[in-house]
Amino acid sequence: MSSLRRIVEGRTTLFVPAASLTRSEPPTTPFFFNPAASVNRDISVAISEAVRGVTFCDSLAGVGARGVRVANELSRRMDVTMVDFNSSALRVAQRSARANSLRCDFVKSEANTFLFSRFRRDSKFDFVEIDPFGTPVPYIQGAFGAAADGGVVSLTSTDTAVLCGVYPEVCGRRYSSLPLKNEFKHETALRILLNACRRIAGMNDIGIEPIAAHSTRHYLRVYARVRAGAAQADRSRAQEGFISSCERCGERGASSLPMVKCDGCGAGILSAGPLWIGPLTDPRVVSAALNVSRRCNLGGGAKALDALLGVEYFPPFSYSVERISSALRVPGVSQSQVMGRLASNGYRVMKQPFEKTGFKTEATYGAVAEAVSAVSRDAGLEKAPLHARPT
Amino acid sequence: MSSLRRIVEGRTTLFVPAASLTRSEPPTTPFFFNPAASVNRDISVAISEAVRGVTFCDSLAGVGARGVRVANELSRRMDVTMVDFNSSALRVAQRSARANSLRCDFVKSEANTFLFSRFRRDSKFDFVEIDPFGTPVPYIQGAFGAAADGGVVSLTSTDTAVLCGVYPEVCGRRYSSLPLKNEFKHETALRILLNACRRIAGMNDIGIEPIAAHSTRHYLRVYARVRAGAAQADRSRAQEGFISSCERCGERGASSLPMVKCDGCGAGILSAGPLWIGPLTDPRVVSAALNVSRRCNLGGGAKALDALLGVEYFPPFSYSVERISSALRVPGVSQSQVMGRLASNGYRVMKQPFEKTGFKTEATYGAVAEAVSAVSRDAGLEKAPLHARPT
Repeated sequence: MSSLRRIVEGRTTLFVPAASLTRSEPPTTPFFFNPAASVNRDISVAISEAVRGVTFCDSLAGVGARGVRVANELSRRMDVTMVDFNSSALRVAQRSARANSLRCDFVKSEANTFLFSRFRRDSKFDFVEIDPFGTPVPYIQGAFGAAADGGVVSLTSTDTAVLCGVYPEVCGRRYSSLPLKNEFKHETALRILLNACRRIAGMNDIGIEPIAAHSTRHYLRVYARVRAGAAQADRSRAQEGFISSCERCGERGASSLPMVKCDGCGAGILSAGPLWIGPLTDPRVVSAALNVSRRCNLGGGAKALDALLGVEYFPPFSYSVERISSALRVPGVSQSQVMGRLASNGYRVMKQPFEKTGFKTEATYGAVAEAVSAVSRDAGLEKAPLHARPT
Repeated sequence: MSSLRRIVEGRTTLFVPAASLTRSEPPTTPFFFNPAASVNRDISVAISEAVRGVTFCDSLAGVGARGVRVANELSRRMDVTMVDFNSSALRVAQRSARANSLRCDFVKSEANTFLFSRFRRDSKFDFVEIDPFGTPVPYIQGAFGAAADGGVVSLTSTDTAVLCGVYPEVCGRRYSSLPLKNEFKHETALRILLNACRRIAGMNDIGIEPIAAHSTRHYLRVYARVRAGAAQADRSRAQEGFISSCERCGERGASSLPMVKCDGCGAGILSAGPLWIGPLTDPRVVSAALNVSRRCNLGGGAKALDALLGVEYFPPFSYSVERISSALRVPGVSQSQVMGRLASNGYRVMKQPFEKTGFKTEATYGAVAEAVSAVSRDAGLEKAPLHARPT
């Protein structure tokens, strides 16, 4: 067995490949461990604690960092099954479980083979976790099929560039959706990923209800509740739609059919989608998971969860002050001032939780452009009043 | 074991539930056998003989009628694996295999569980057969994943009404496509089914090439070759499109984006799709399978295969003389006369192989309407010459 190091992550002792702690790119052989994904695991622990359920399957478990933490850190007993095709990774996971005096199940199997073996109602899991290299798409059917009604499926995607519009052809093939590389591409990416979950679950008469999502470093994460039944699948399908963002004037919108012409300036536009235009979070779960994170000092997770609070009030896109300033031909102004202006005008605003910059608001594009213009005027950056709506 | 009867189908002895031979609706318990599906199995045998490959998996085998026939009737040795969750059905299949002195593999397993266990390259099958009650959609990923590169996946759909537009909502959920209940709804249905195969295979970096399709009695069947690799998946994806048929004038067309306005009369129209607008057949395979059917006296199969000859020359829709006569406000004329007229005008024509009536042609809609009008005039049914294009 390759050189292992004993570490503590959260409140759990883990054995991990020593090289993964020193090299900037953790080695993938003989097995993979990414110390930087501790935030990802923190949130998993917090959400697992925040919702019901006592059986957890980490179907691409690797050295078992997530599974062992879930088994160890929850206030209730969790029956955790860790599945991996790599026997030596599983042996490390077993060692970590023993170090925390845990009893878990370890299964050497390819993930889908295992997931599809759990098609019977009494063998399904309350939580099914998919954390692959690259796209989770090949595992979506298996994950939703192996999850109990009311349970939770969580998925990681590391093919972020594909979902964010760098390779639209690949996104079309893999996710049956057109991405757009714009200022809210990570949110769009999460919504494309969720709609792929919805479509594949729906083909199997299963509905989905997103409960949380985050975009951290190079990967995307979604958590969705499983709702069995054709009626539930149809209810989820009603959340399929398109998001457009005008390259010319910065106007944006969501609709059930793709838009081809900008409502603002009349320019031709492309709509991203089909994608999930409904809520990305269950605010009760997010609040509860945030409380868990704070109570248990799961720092990284708390930050990502905190950023999600209130996101359910906003449309499925965000605004970029820079883009609007440029369309209005005024110098750049501060995002926080524009947000403040909109708030004082009575609109809800929040920072865009999935991007480095940008903000969400319930205000119309016209009102946002007006606020940018007003802030610019107040700052003396703009001499004569401009038309609020760029043309 | 329930009462069995020994029958001969093709050149194979089969044990089947006695009640299935006498009742008009074959009973589904303790296991199902449909004598009327012999055409379906005839074609399976003929296509398996016509293409390469020596391993065949009937993944929802029931009493094994198809698997035992494939093992018995081909001129080369076939390693047939029959999979079913019903042990007593499998025992009947074993008895039929013994009656023909065949060695086959019998596996008691849920279909997907078995198919996903064959993810490794050296354990894939040259043929994977999916013949479920209802929709084959939940098995598409497993089937394409368990089939070798260059192998064939064949699927039956008995949710014909869903694919033919009776329940468009269900079609949307299950096949992610809008069906249209028009004069070529079975062809549209086959194309929606193929595109679902394409989409799901494509998500797993697999391309498809349809080799044959038929609509017989209450079910639909497609045969598609498996082409491994992302580039092959992208090539298949280029065959995704929409078919529109104008309810007002009868005009029709295929395009890569949905049409919203009729090219003929300007009326608003709905396009069926997304669906497979590329070829439905590999003419070499169809010819070879037809030869096999004739040589081996597989009567029903020969008829369906014969009807497919030449279909690759035509666009993905057909015309109805009745619909056009009605739009032109002339009395109905004979379809064969209209086809004859078009042929003498130099156009290729053929009977629509997937519908009870209708014909396919390379002629434009205008030319077809003109031919209907001319036949009507010649028959003295129409006094004054009409504008050929209905408005």
